[in-house]
Amino acid sequence: MKLYTAPRAPNPRRVAMFMAEKGITLELQMVDLGAGEHRSERYLAVNPFGRVPALALDDGRILCETRAICTYLEGLHPAPNLMGEDFEERAFIEMADRRMELHLFAIAANCIRHSHPGFAPLENPQFPAFGAAQGEKFRDNARWLDGVLARQPYVAGERFTIADITAFCAMDFARGLMKFRPAEQGLAHLQAWRDRIAARPSASAGT
Amino acid sequence: MKLYTAPRAPNPRRVAMFMAEKGITLELQMVDLGAGEHRSERYLAVNPFGRVPALALDDGRILCETRAICTYLEGLHPAPNLMGEDFEERAFIEMADRRMELHLFAIAANCIRHSHPGFAPLENPQFPAFGAAQGEKFRDNARWLDGVLARQPYVAGERFTIADITAFCAMDFARGLMKFRPAEQGLAHLQAWRDRIAARPSASAGT
Repeated sequence: MKLYTAPRAPNPRRVAMFMAEKGITLELQMVDLGAGEHRSERYLAVNPFGRVPALALDDGRILCETRAICTYLEGLHPAPNLMGEDFEERAFIEMADRRMELHLFAIAANCIRHSHPGFAPLENPQFPAFGAAQGEKFRDNARWLDGVLARQPYVAGERFTIADITAFCAMDFARGLMKFRPAEQGLAHLQAWRDRIAARPSASAGT
Repeated sequence: MKLYTAPRAPNPRRVAMFMAEKGITLELQMVDLGAGEHRSERYLAVNPFGRVPALALDDGRILCETRAICTYLEGLHPAPNLMGEDFEERAFIEMADRRMELHLFAIAANCIRHSHPGFAPLENPQFPAFGAAQGEKFRDNARWLDGVLARQPYVAGERFTIADITAFCAMDFARGLMKFRPAEQGLAHLQAWRDRIAARPSASAGT
């Protein structure tokens, strides 16, 4: 197996952190996003959407989409469990993970891609007013998550799961490119959770 | 169990079609989106994001997010299998399903919510230029899917899965509100697939 990936990109980081939590190492093939390698004919043959990460299996098949790659790696390396022990827990962790994706990760990405000058080549055309509105939505949703974390230690409940990885990578994306600091917004529970996750050894994977 | 849902809305339709394929019936609680019931205090206590569907379990817990609800229902009613028999198949179906969600369903929703006057109360502010650009992206991605369906009969491969449901509901959303017809775009494989899925008894569920 070989993982096509890139440093300092939020989706590859989710898989890197997932692998670090499980102690998985894979052959890595770096894709140079800065040089536009993800738009090269060679890489589009790997993933027609030009996105990283992508996992090339030994039988030649290519598995794309961050969360699908995690599903596969969880099957190969079940411990520690990060996506649910049975279908009921899997469903509730999937709910939490999707909320992090839809209401934090995607909203931060929309904000950054449509308002940050560095993303003009990637997001063409940019809609800065849309980006700014998404930034507001991100702050609203961060406030909702702060309320969740006032009641429970982790995003999906009592234990660390893939939903914490998704949320942490979204928060760190927003930290870098939206200068978002929960404590400055009065979100003490979110800040405390963020600092606890940042202290895990896996937090530096993929950076 | 009780399913909070609404007629003629694309995410509730995904769950309705999934249930119809498995022969599942549940107590339904209709949420009147036209009257703004999903924004009522009572419904926000069910789902703080004000979205349908949501599944209330007998123990009082609420499971939200369309695909997480399907994961749960697949666990309770394994046959016919729609999400993968083992972790490897689950990962590949998840990849296909996410592509349908991200590259068709979400793009159509962005286009419609930002450009259709009927959605002005829901998407505030609307960004019509962003909506139009998303419409273009939708057509590009439909062309990609047409190529996939030239090589295989179903979205995820050789058999009908949840990814066909997601794609079909996205296509029908675009059919109703973007007047999108694959055949008119020269996408014969996509049109033939669409017509085959539309002929399944489950296709009218949730409409």
